[in-house]
This record gives sequence, C-alpha cells and structure tokens, in this order.
Amino acid sequence: MSMHDNETIQVLKKEEELYEKACKVLPGGISRNVVFRKPHPFYVSEAKGCYVTDINGNKKVDYANNIASLIHGHAHPQIIEAVYKQMQKGTAYTIGTEIEIEHATLLCNRVPGFDKIRFMNSGTEAVMAMIKAARAFTGKPKIAKAEGGYHGSFDTAEVSQSSSPATWGDIDNPRSVAHVVGTPQAVLDNVVVYHYNDIERTINILNRHAGEIACVLIDPVPHRIGMVQATPEFVEALYKWTRENGALLCFDEVICFRADYEGAQSAYSVRPDLTSMGKIIGGGFPIGAFAGRADIMNILDPGGSDFRFPLSGTFSANPISMTAGKVAMEMLDREAMIKLNNFSQIAINQIKEAGKIAGIPLSITGKGSMFKVHFREVAPKNYRESYEDAHTKMIMNMFLEKMYEEGVIMINSCSCVLSTVIGQPEIDLLSDAMLKSFRHIKPHLQA
Amino acid sequence: MSMHDNETIQVLKKEEELYEKACKVLPGGISRNVVFRKPHPFYVSEAKGCYVTDINGNKKVDYANNIASLIHGHAHPQIIEAVYKQMQKGTAYTIGTEIEIEHATLLCNRVPGFDKIRFMNSGTEAVMAMIKAARAFTGKPKIAKAEGGYHGSFDTAEVSQSSSPATWGDIDNPRSVAHVVGTPQAVLDNVVVYHYNDIERTINILNRHAGEIACVLIDPVPHRIGMVQATPEFVEALYKWTRENGALLCFDEVICFRADYEGAQSAYSVRPDLTSMGKIIGGGFPIGAFAGRADIMNILDPGGSDFRFPLSGTFSANPISMTAGKVAMEMLDREAMIKLNNFSQIAINQIKEAGKIAGIPLSITGKGSMFKVHFREVAPKNYRESYEDAHTKMIMNMFLEKMYEEGVIMINSCSCVLSTVIGQPEIDLLSDAMLKSFRHIKPHLQA
Repeated sequence: MSMHDNETIQVLKKEEELYEKACKVLPGGISRNVVFRKPHPFYVSEAKGCYVTDINGNKKVDYANNIASLIHGHAHPQIIEAVYKQMQKGTAYTIGTEIEIEHATLLCNRVPGFDKIRFMNSGTEAVMAMIKAARAFTGKPKIAKAEGGYHGSFDTAEVSQSSSPATWGDIDNPRSVAHVVGTPQAVLDNVVVYHYNDIERTINILNRHAGEIACVLIDPVPHRIGMVQATPEFVEALYKWTRENGALLCFDEVICFRADYEGAQSAYSVRPDLTSMGKIIGGGFPIGAFAGRADIMNILDPGGSDFRFPLSGTFSANPISMTAGKVAMEMLDREAMIKLNNFSQIAINQIKEAGKIAGIPLSITGKGSMFKVHFREVAPKNYRESYEDAHTKMIMNMFLEKMYEEGVIMINSCSCVLSTVIGQPEIDLLSDAMLKSFRHIKPHLQA
Repeated sequence: MSMHDNETIQVLKKEEELYEKACKVLPGGISRNVVFRKPHPFYVSEAKGCYVTDINGNKKVDYANNIASLIHGHAHPQIIEAVYKQMQKGTAYTIGTEIEIEHATLLCNRVPGFDKIRFMNSGTEAVMAMIKAARAFTGKPKIAKAEGGYHGSFDTAEVSQSSSPATWGDIDNPRSVAHVVGTPQAVLDNVVVYHYNDIERTINILNRHAGEIACVLIDPVPHRIGMVQATPEFVEALYKWTRENGALLCFDEVICFRADYEGAQSAYSVRPDLTSMGKIIGGGFPIGAFAGRADIMNILDPGGSDFRFPLSGTFSANPISMTAGKVAMEMLDREAMIKLNNFSQIAINQIKEAGKIAGIPLSITGKGSMFKVHFREVAPKNYRESYEDAHTKMIMNMFLEKMYEEGVIMINSCSCVLSTVIGQPEIDLLSDAMLKSFRHIKPHLQA
C-alpha cells in the first residue's frame, strides 16, 4: 500500500517538516510520551474502523486503539451520528443533563457493586478522585500500590511506577521511588509499595503500615507489570487484609475494564469497594469515572449528611463524552464481548503458532481483548521479573518498527488490544506480520 | 416563554423523575457540584448561541457559559462543522497529529513568553502538571498559593481553597486548610498560603519558606477571591521575590485567559515563567494546557538531555479538542476580543445603573468578559474581605433563583461571563433582570 518512491520522499519530507514545526512549540515535538519515536513520530492522516492511514498514505491495522481506549475502532458510524446530534444541542452546560444520568445508570446496572458513580475527564483524574475518596472515607493518609503499577499522573499514584534495579531496593521492602524528579519526600512517604502477586511479602509490607493505609490500589491486569493477571488468591488476600485493617480495596480498571463484560473484577470472588474507569467508557472521547459502594460515594454529595469530598470539574460528565460512551457501551453487549474476546484468543493462538514456526522463545500474557508479547519462554509473574532492560527494549523497538512496516500499529509495550471491528482478515495480517517480525528480531534474541 | 400550567406540572414532574433517577446512581444526583441546587438541578433540553432551553421549555440567556469555558456560546456552527469533519477521520490515535501542532503554534504565537506548550484534558490536570514541572525544575517541594484561590482538584492545589473564619488562622500566618477531608498532613505542610494582594504580609510569609518554594501560584483574576484583579505592584513583588529565591512564578489562567487577547497576564510588566490554561482554548471540549519558558518546558522532552518529567495522557491533545480549540481561538481575534470586552463594559454600566435605580449597595469586580456582582458599596480586596457568610449566601441564592426566573443563567458566585454571540438585546435583558432581582433581594439586604 506504499506510494511511489518520489512521492514517498515528498511525504517523508512532510513528516520531517511537521516534526520540525512541532519541536518549536511542543517539548520533544510531542503531546504524549507514547507517540514519541526516533527520528520523529508517525503522523495520522485519517482513521476508520480498524485502519489508520498515516500521512505517508500507508494504511495500518490498529492494534493500539489509542492505548486501549477505542473498543469499536475509529469513527464508528453510530457513535459519530449520536455525537453529531448532541453537538448541535451543545457540548457543555452549567446545568444538569439527562444523558449523564443515562450513562451512569447503564454502568451501575452493568457491574454488581457499582452502587453510584462519579464522572470526570481522564483516568488520571479518576484515580486521583478515588484515592481522595478513600482518604476522606477512612481518614488515613497512605495508599498501597504495586511496584511498577501505572495509574496515571497524580503524583501519589505514580510513585514507583518506573522503579528500576538501581532504585527499587530490597524485595521485602520496596522503596517508594519518584517517577518525576522533584516529587516531594512527603508524597513518597505516603505510598506503600507492595510486591505484585506475592501474598506473603505483600501482607508483611502492608502489616508494617497497618492503621495508616486508606486503600490498597490494584490494577488486576496491569499493563506495565507484564500484563500479568492478578491471581484470585492474591486479590482475596488483599480483600481480607483491607477488611481487617479498615482500608478500602480499590481496583484501577481504567485500562482493564475492557477485559470482560463486567470488567476484569468479574474474575474474582471478592469485589472492590471502589473502581476507577476511563478509556472505553467514553466511546473515544475524554472520560474518567469512579464507582462503588454507596456509603463511600455519598461523601461526594454536597447536600448529604456525610459530605466530605467537594469535587467539581468544568468538563466532567460533558454530554459529548456521555453520549459517545453510552452508545459505545450499549454496543458492547455480552454477545459483542464474547465475540471480541474469542477473536483475541484466535489471535493469540495464531501468534503462538507463528512463534513456533519462527523458532523464538515466546509467551503471551493478558486478558480478554488485550495481550502482551514477551520474547521469553516463561511469562513474568511480577514487576521485577517483567522489567525490560536496555537490550530487551532495543529488541522491542526493532520489533515494533518492523510490525509498523508490515502494516500493524501496536502499543509500545509490545501489546495488542483488539476492537470489535477487527475480523479474521486483520488477525491473519497480524499473525503474518508477527511471523515476519519474529524472524527479523530472531538473530538479536540469540545474541 | 413559559408553558401552560398543566404542561408545566408535567415537565416539573419530569425534572423530579430525572432527579430521582439521578440520585440512585450519582452521589447527590449530580456529576459536578456547580449544578447542585435544591430541590433539584435544572436540566437542559438544548442550547444554541447564547441561549439555553431547559426541559421546562424555558429559554434562558446563558451568562455562565459552562463556568466561563464557552467563548462563542453553544454549538457555534464553525466549531460544529470543523469537529464533525474531524470526527469522521477519528477522535483519538496512538500516533501524532497535525492539528495538535497547529493549535500549539497558534497559542505560542499569541502570547509572548509561551515558548512551548503541553496539552492535557482539564484545568485540574494543567495546574497539577505545572506544579510538578516547577518542582522538577527547581528541586523544591513546596508551592505558595493565595488563600481562597481555586486551582482545580489536585490535592496540593486545592489547599485553603475553602478556608473559613473558623479555620484560616492568623492573617500574618494563614493556616494550610484541607479542602477535602482526609487530605494528608504531608500535603498541607507543602503548601504555603499567602495573603492575596497584600505585598508586605505575603513577602513575609514567603520569606519564612525561602529555599523550599518551587513556585508561587497566582490566578490574577481569581473567581473565588471576589474576582479581584491582582495589582501590578503585587504581581511585580511576587516576580521579584521568585527571581531572588530560585522559585518560578506560575499564573493560573484556566479561567482568566479569556480576559484579554494575550490572557490576563498582558496587564503586567512582568511575565510568568509558566501559565496553565483550559476552558476557552478547547472550544467547548475538554482541555487543559500549560506553557512557558523553553528551558523549563524541555524537562518534558523524553528525548532531550534534561528529561525529568515523564507525562502521558490517553486523551491529551486529542484531535477533537484541538480542532474545536483552534477554530475557537482563531475566531477570537483582537477585534472580536475588543468587541466582547466592550459589551462586557456596557453590561457593567447598565447593571450599575440598575443598582442605583433599585437603591441597593453594589460593586462589580472582574476583568474583560467576566465580572462578579457584590451586594456592598465597596468591593472586597482579598479573600477574607470577600468571604461570603451564610446570610450573604442565602441572599445570593435568592438572587440567582430570581435571575433564572427572569431568564438569565449566572454562575453561582453571582458572576457573569459573556460570549461573543451576546448582543445588546441580551445585555438589556440582563440588566432588566438584574433590576427586578435587585428589588427582589433588597428587603433582605436591609435586614
């Protein structure tokens, strides 16, 4: 699908010109680190369904879906139509809307344990509000989170997100490591870092801070911890510990809510007290939310008897995100979810087959419509095992570049997320591209 | 414009039914505290230009404009058209876009001192990122902010936003007061609260924390500090202090960027190092941004030699907010800004006249297209003077209800913000409604 050579040179020039312009006004020429790439980012021309066309005129199958946020691919006609209709009646008001009630009702009806919900504009805001709610409800100052867990950019939530062998410290007592330079020591001191999926170590760590922990935060399918699902035993142990120590169990499902019809939490026998969401529940538009137990959520009620948490937000629950989100979630019914996750399983099987043919070490982690490819025989079980050193990152980049060349956009962690508009032809394209890319990196794996 | 009586009863029932549904799934039945109202919020049916029609079929002139975020009113045809065109090519990608570069260039070209810019999804995120950048750049843990200043819901930024006579402490040493229950002491300890527009007291306070302060944060037209403009002397004193003490001067212009063509900062002889924005620069769609000195902004560059601040964001710089924002800001050229601010001055003059006719004490603060009405002869100068007690709040609510009845939506702080689609007829309607509402509350003012 590439263009003629002289045209290619022209559009390459356009990419370079764009990047030059970008670097004048955007630090590093980008607005989000995920699009950063040397010598410059790729730039989009247009996207439709599961295809993205870049400004070189090359059409790619999109297995990134804006970092897992597009569950129905790009520009889905039903979403576009509904949003267009809403737009003509306005995009934001200072009074209430019917659509926010409808979307809230849909989500609360969908997931057991979602008594009430509050919307905001991003996953970052959702996790921040959930943590603030936990602190307000329990009166305790600390949170516990898994080493390596990504939970957006609230300073408290991002501690130890990027711990490295040089900084992470003793495995029985992981250090609270600043993700951003200049994070105050006071912020680090209020974050207890536990060891993902390791019951004994984690409980020992939590016990040392018992009485001070407002919530134990966990993403049960953590993208940055090798996309390794939390074991039922681990989640149950956290649940039990929080019951015994006056803390809340908070699930961050901003990414993994797409993993199952009722979210990734439906895999467990215990339920979180609060859950943060974002990404797919906005239908491609900015959104965040957290939901859970009525007695906790009611601290947000300015007219209630237990008002502790005043919270506003100019664009929170704006009718565009609500409309797009509601249409998207309605389309993602049980049947659509089963079909989507089945396709994902087919893709995984085909990729494993490709790995065998290429003769490379390969393991795949994930859940539902999201999975991550590891160039190793045995999948990692926690953050330290999943930590990718410079050599691994070099191979991953080489792999991702080759995949792009072969027509596939993946997430830069070597992960894929499917949308409902992907079919067997795109899965075949994916596994074919993987086979070629596996062979491309193979010499370096053996080095 | 109201409907027949039996129809009114039916739609009133609909409002109550909606609110009943809302209360089942949303804490307090709302998604944002600004829409909270007893016995229930108003609900929108549709909005167009400067008019909002509620579900009772009543058409109101909108002087709230979604808390100052709509600079061209509702559903502006040029914005709708541009967004619709973009939507069909997608709403979010994992690769770069041309439109983010264009909007960044527009804003950087518009304001001297905006060397580079980074986009995010809300004013809350913008202020949080700006504070994190100041901490990363200076290596210092504390921020200084004005008592009563509203800067979104980042826990650090919201300290002392709602200080009251019972909590604010000595005027020479204002306490850091938690806005949300459960705010960790460690967060409070890193916030230095200064006394707005009071040079001597503020410098004394700052001096006590010299060497620890990363930035002095100020909204120069603070909505929650009586919308009193910062004096040039005060801003210059802050500037001088930050130069002498290795701190940054950070303007929060999320709200007040609309006050002038180059933002409220153009009123001063000194420039902030960093500025946060939001609201109008998104054209009615979720947005946030911060901009400023290249040497500071470059700490965000993941490929740069001074990378200290990794920051991502799923919907940051999404092409919908970028498209709407760019069109909105292009339409808000120098001529449009002058016309808008002139209309605002006409409105203020007519309202002052109405106040004289009604014979009530009245003062008006603000800048450009935003102003706040105070039921007192002399306008407040700082937070403590502007603090509204229960009786004042009761009168304000009575006033706002009457204004709504008379066909005007205001911000619940008794503030108005104009949009470019407001003309003389709507201003006449505003001052007429004010006259009636002044008379309505007059007996209670004299009580």
